[in-house]
Amino acid sequence: MILTNVKVIAFDADDTLWINEPYFQEIANKFCALLEDFMPAHSIAKELFKTEMDNLALYGYGVKGFILSMVETALRVSDHTISAGVIENILGYGKELIQKDIELLDGIEHVLEQLSKKYKLVVATKGDLLDQERKLRKSGIEHYFHHTEIMSDKQEKDYIKLIKHLDIQPGEFMMIGNSIRSDIFPVLAIGAHAVHVPYHTTWAHEHVEQKSGDASFIQLANISEILDLLPL
Amino acid sequence: MILTNVKVIAFDADDTLWINEPYFQEIANKFCALLEDFMPAHSIAKELFKTEMDNLALYGYGVKGFILSMVETALRVSDHTISAGVIENILGYGKELIQKDIELLDGIEHVLEQLSKKYKLVVATKGDLLDQERKLRKSGIEHYFHHTEIMSDKQEKDYIKLIKHLDIQPGEFMMIGNSIRSDIFPVLAIGAHAVHVPYHTTWAHEHVEQKSGDASFIQLANISEILDLLPL
Repeated sequence: MILTNVKVIAFDADDTLWINEPYFQEIANKFCALLEDFMPAHSIAKELFKTEMDNLALYGYGVKGFILSMVETALRVSDHTISAGVIENILGYGKELIQKDIELLDGIEHVLEQLSKKYKLVVATKGDLLDQERKLRKSGIEHYFHHTEIMSDKQEKDYIKLIKHLDIQPGEFMMIGNSIRSDIFPVLAIGAHAVHVPYHTTWAHEHVEQKSGDASFIQLANISEILDLLPL
Repeated sequence: MILTNVKVIAFDADDTLWINEPYFQEIANKFCALLEDFMPAHSIAKELFKTEMDNLALYGYGVKGFILSMVETALRVSDHTISAGVIENILGYGKELIQKDIELLDGIEHVLEQLSKKYKLVVATKGDLLDQERKLRKSGIEHYFHHTEIMSDKQEKDYIKLIKHLDIQPGEFMMIGNSIRSDIFPVLAIGAHAVHVPYHTTWAHEHVEQKSGDASFIQLANISEILDLLPL
């Protein structure tokens, strides 16, 4: 199969271009260890996820909301007995996460170099604006992209807005990403192309159950395989 | 004077389209009152501003960074003796701020209605992505705008990127806003038009000293006067 109509290819960023979720998990683990006097680590992890979900509509995606949700969880699970020192540790974890080095995933640079010769490439990602821009700048691959679209969410309506903004038809748009929920299903639903490149670690919020009636989509074990699907 | 080349008009959002800074100040005042056992209110306000400036490169602009900086300031000024209850109050203030109603500034709706007939209007604002999108949605004026540009900063390079993204020349771009530092000087520096509509309350970070050698710019007492400057 060769896809001939594609004009714009959008890449998800976190865990598609570079490593992200393992860093969040690492901080979440430290957070759970910090509060083990109050609850077993797996219970704290559950409480943190609950707080994040409760706050999602208010804070949106990204690292700052994550830090705020850790602080809120610490207050709750400690029944407001948490010390100021622990709160300070949490703020420190957040700053550590923001300043992490960027590690590109295997094969990314070659894929971008090849595709950028023929296609308009954009980054389409959720998260904090400044944080994602900083990661892209540090990544050394910013010059392959026409621009970055930071999206407050990745639902059908958000992709419709994106495609309108790009002045193209849905069939001319391809999304590549690691989240079936965010990068694949809503994109297929509006008649665009979606390519799934799974990553070994996925945030619980991005998990979906696939049902037998669901649309089929292209899944690649390695992003380099995309070069076989598109005319170059 | 009538400006005849303008194609795209960008509006700053906070304190240009709707009230914002007084709400931040209101929360900052509550925060200072909360910590008065440790320091006089005006000293706390100074400490908070210092924390915000220290964190600006990491957190960027917007309400979530503001909340995180309040928490950090509380830890510091209390010498880590602050109670969990106070931290909880601060998180509550933040959520209150995020959920504030939107109050449009005088004359905005009429101006947008008139200008949208002939010009492409966009919103160009700093702050948290989701937060600014939520405000625009609640404002009831979203339909006048072609789209929203949430900018991580408003320096010359950011405006150059914006104009490239809009596919226009600098002389075809006009920025309208309340901050001389963010909405006026960098816009004039790249050869575009800038119109200053002052607002009675300005965040200390946006203050600039105007020097006699600075470029002159158009200043309006009320945004409605813009209708006299542009062909309709």
